[in-house]
Amino acid sequence: MGVSETQLIERYFRHVGAPRDDVVLGIGDDAALLQVPGDAQLVLTTDALVEGVHFLPGAPARSLGHRCLAVNLSDIAAMGASPRWALLALNLPQADAHWLEAFAAGFDALARLHGVALVGGNLSRGPLSITVQLAGVLPRGVALRREGARAGDALYVSGSIGDAAAGLKCLQGTLAASAPARAYLQGRFEFPTPRVELGAGLRDLASACIDLSDGLLLDAQRLLRASNCRACIELERLPLSAALVETCGELAWQQGLSGGEDYELCFSAPPAQAAAIEALALRTASPVTRIGVLGAGSGLELKLHNVVMRFAASGFDHFQA
Amino acid sequence: MGVSETQLIERYFRHVGAPRDDVVLGIGDDAALLQVPGDAQLVLTTDALVEGVHFLPGAPARSLGHRCLAVNLSDIAAMGASPRWALLALNLPQADAHWLEAFAAGFDALARLHGVALVGGNLSRGPLSITVQLAGVLPRGVALRREGARAGDALYVSGSIGDAAAGLKCLQGTLAASAPARAYLQGRFEFPTPRVELGAGLRDLASACIDLSDGLLLDAQRLLRASNCRACIELERLPLSAALVETCGELAWQQGLSGGEDYELCFSAPPAQAAAIEALALRTASPVTRIGVLGAGSGLELKLHNVVMRFAASGFDHFQA
Repeated sequence: MGVSETQLIERYFRHVGAPRDDVVLGIGDDAALLQVPGDAQLVLTTDALVEGVHFLPGAPARSLGHRCLAVNLSDIAAMGASPRWALLALNLPQADAHWLEAFAAGFDALARLHGVALVGGNLSRGPLSITVQLAGVLPRGVALRREGARAGDALYVSGSIGDAAAGLKCLQGTLAASAPARAYLQGRFEFPTPRVELGAGLRDLASACIDLSDGLLLDAQRLLRASNCRACIELERLPLSAALVETCGELAWQQGLSGGEDYELCFSAPPAQAAAIEALALRTASPVTRIGVLGAGSGLELKLHNVVMRFAASGFDHFQA
Repeated sequence: MGVSETQLIERYFRHVGAPRDDVVLGIGDDAALLQVPGDAQLVLTTDALVEGVHFLPGAPARSLGHRCLAVNLSDIAAMGASPRWALLALNLPQADAHWLEAFAAGFDALARLHGVALVGGNLSRGPLSITVQLAGVLPRGVALRREGARAGDALYVSGSIGDAAAGLKCLQGTLAASAPARAYLQGRFEFPTPRVELGAGLRDLASACIDLSDGLLLDAQRLLRASNCRACIELERLPLSAALVETCGELAWQQGLSGGEDYELCFSAPPAQAAAIEALALRTASPVTRIGVLGAGSGLELKLHNVVMRFAASGFDHFQA
């Protein structure tokens, strides 16, 4: 290979991401040095992509560069914060120039879109895995949490759900789809859209928020548990893409409920905010759909054609038997 | 296995680390929410331990819990900052209760010692690798950097050097040592001492600082390059432990120069600070040794019994051929 860790960082990562005035010291010293606004709270998150777990061996590097940042941006969005500074820890089996270029390009494009600077990281030899840590800021006391939803609030979800999991099945060869549907679904898996602007706008409107990484069924229940609420979701209302419906037919809603990796936001808001939420959705080009209502108590009810169903919890959990 | 990611986090990680009043929201939401002092700069770093690269398969979990935090604390120390909040991304092949308990205990003990809260993370199935992100704070404009050393400054190193690499060789079976020497050297590899208090104290005394992860020869040259200085190191002055000298004999100084993973600090300071540095070393129980002097120009000279040697750069680099 004949190229050092330092040279690899110089060549592929030095200029990745947005330049930011608040980066006092970025890549190249023992740690990054950053100027935090005086009145801000700091938001920190980390998420990892592991080969064979979160992506298939041989997955396109550009998609991985995008996804490893997108999944973290989604966590920052779910808090209503503005992303600022990223660290990247990359374990690589070998230093492949084409792979590194494509990976860096995918990371860079998404980072610039959201004004995120790459300020440091770590490069090691090892089985391919990618861990990003993302720091964001927001004004004191306004963070969105999973708790805070109240009986009577409406339950919303952004974008469409179930697409990414269906796209992964297409990639794995376990789901057949038409060429255009397949392209759309795979794109939703490989290049998810973190709802950063929507999340920041929801700070003043939503009562609770979570991002959908493990599927609506699991993640909505996390929000409900944290908020001590129950919810009734009307399955006819689930935002399902035309491609998903075309591909999965009558079972599309099941895919929408349990499919993970969508990185949409699920949030609650008082009914009085409905118009403001619609306006925000338009302004940020992030479609949102009201899918149900919250009540006192606990648990999740699913209603299909006015028949109430109870559904065994499912979704993606790494250590479930 | 029958236990979920959420349950594992609850069981093993929820109460790890120091409780801190500035943690508004820790483990359990989409991201952690932290109160940064208004006049502070933020310091961010990340470092990873990969099985087979940074530790041997079957390495004791308690040591890994300690080391994954120690290597990051060392980066924070090298900036002169105070560590505050950690994120832990853990890829595990399986959830082994004994392993997790010992790992968490190792992390916890060191975190509490330095007042670090564990505020979030990520748990995935995958080949064993551990990535920690650590955030620290320090007053505006006082961070220690690799640049800033000037001709005439003295060059120092903390603790003793070469021990950890020799300890690793003992573990690998490629270096023979007496039982007490072996125990000492392995302990230095498995439980390195990050020089956090020393680093914070050096903020007002040192002109430049770096931590020793890849060996004095490589890391000192990084400091010199960043500072546009040359240095002459007197090899008789290298702080070598009795165990290292007993084990490596006349070659101990070579081990001290090129051995990595010590996580000691290498720093420069004007001669006028010599007494203050000695006092700081005593106060923080961190021995420091003056090993040489800086001059104008570039490069590194090594002097043994007043004979000047030039040494080919070496040390540990993950992607070197």
